Amino acid sequence: MRNLDQNTITDAVLARFADTPDPRLKTIITSLVRHLHDFAREVELTEAEWEKGIDFLTRVGHITDDKRHEFILLSDVLGLSMLTVAMNQDKPRGCTEATVFGPFHVEGAPHYELGDDIANGAAGTPCVVRGTVRGLDGEPVANARMDVWQSDHDGLYDVQHPDLDHAQARGILHTDDQGRFHFRSVVAVPYQIPHDGPVGQLLDATNRHPWRPAHLHFKIDAPGYESLITHVFRNGDPWLDSDAVFGVRESLVADWVEQDDGTYLLEFDFVLNRKD
Amino acid sequence: MRNLDQNTITDAVLARFADTPDPRLKTIITSLVRHLHDFAREVELTEAEWEKGIDFLTRVGHITDDKRHEFILLSDVLGLSMLTVAMNQDKPRGCTEATVFGPFHVEGAPHYELGDDIANGAAGTPCVVRGTVRGLDGEPVANARMDVWQSDHDGLYDVQHPDLDHAQARGILHTDDQGRFHFRSVVAVPYQIPHDGPVGQLLDATNRHPWRPAHLHFKIDAPGYESLITHVFRNGDPWLDSDAVFGVRESLVADWVEQDDGTYLLEFDFVLNRKD
Repeated sequence: MRNLDQNTITDAVLARFADTPDPRLKTIITSLVRHLHDFAREVELTEAEWEKGIDFLTRVGHITDDKRHEFILLSDVLGLSMLTVAMNQDKPRGCTEATVFGPFHVEGAPHYELGDDIANGAAGTPCVVRGTVRGLDGEPVANARMDVWQSDHDGLYDVQHPDLDHAQARGILHTDDQGRFHFRSVVAVPYQIPHDGPVGQLLDATNRHPWRPAHLHFKIDAPGYESLITHVFRNGDPWLDSDAVFGVRESLVADWVEQDDGTYLLEFDFVLNRKD
Repeated sequence: MRNLDQNTITDAVLARFADTPDPRLKTIITSLVRHLHDFAREVELTEAEWEKGIDFLTRVGHITDDKRHEFILLSDVLGLSMLTVAMNQDKPRGCTEATVFGPFHVEGAPHYELGDDIANGAAGTPCVVRGTVRGLDGEPVANARMDVWQSDHDGLYDVQHPDLDHAQARGILHTDDQGRFHFRSVVAVPYQIPHDGPVGQLLDATNRHPWRPAHLHFKIDAPGYESLITHVFRNGDPWLDSDAVFGVRESLVADWVEQDDGTYLLEFDFVLNRKD
């Protein structure tokens, strides 16, 4: 264990993790160390670059608080979040596809009745959202808990408005006994992910744009069914093919249809996968 | 770019980084994304494990401040720091070997004259440290700047004592015109790396101990020579073969020799590599 060189050190580190009691943790840490070391050797990481990496991660940590989740954002722009979703949410054909959770979900959103306006003062063009929640065999899912959240007309979530002290454009509803839901909100718009921090600097340095296509988030839970975390994306959005976080699924793209009175209507049906 | 699956997403992410203007950054981010995605696929990372990872990194960031560098510590215990040193500090035979920088260096340590006591009140058994700094051809390096730091008798660096408002057991000295140095300090003892944070939890969960063998840090700079960052380790230390951060080099192990008066003497000579 003395005189380790740049090749022998990897096995020495893995030997030190050999007594990890939890076999799953041992599997994960073993793979992590191998890939971390292989990465450093492959690029011949310099000490100055190592320092920059340490500094970058530290800044990502320091900007993170209970409302801003920069490590989630980093995972999102590196495609790790969507990769993890894709591996874990490979649902049977016919089920609504899942996509990234994103950094803007908040626990404890206000509860609303069907038909309520969840915008709660958020700026934007009024719209109605309605549809059904069903199982794979077409059975309606009654009383499904729907956690909905979205940005306002300025492309900002409520938690991004520093002076706002109440929830806007987010809420919890439950489907009726036919699995139906409907609520009012504002029309989703494309927005830039927060790019005034280290993740934004990474995007800048790599000539990447921070845009996400307009979308509405849903987290749907019902007993006997797998939880579904997904978005509905707005058809025609210019960023659908270059979402900064790689979350778009063709099956999740839908039309917000303009009505005679200038408001919009989104109709979307969800299909949940039954739990084993 | 829609409907990416767990395999196609990697190329889609790399395509998004294709316009990175700095070729070195492009090389690094490409390798990083490949290894990050390969790691996640290899272990079939679950969403709950992804969340734990995000939470772990956030906690590492939050405990980090200007005196505690938890990401450096994490890099150290994963062997990444020593791997980086090994790749970058592959010096010619005859030069003093380098080892990890560690998280306890502080810029702006007090300046001392040769012969001074750098302990400056730190608890411990008194010792004298002396030696020479030379180049590979044996030429003395006059006026070399030696930045020295170490823990006290309790195994703590000054910055780990919350109430201490001045530097202890660290200082900057310069060799004389013969390349010689000598100063007083306290005898180094083995210590535990800070393990009351997330890195400590990782060590606990993997049955790893947090001990480092006793050592004295040096950073030596002189015009015309490569900077040398290294330790001198204490011979006989029980942790020499299982240093928590993988830093031990046989050539850096030396005796602190007890003197008749109960104090100790460490003699160690450094050999610097000339700059190209």
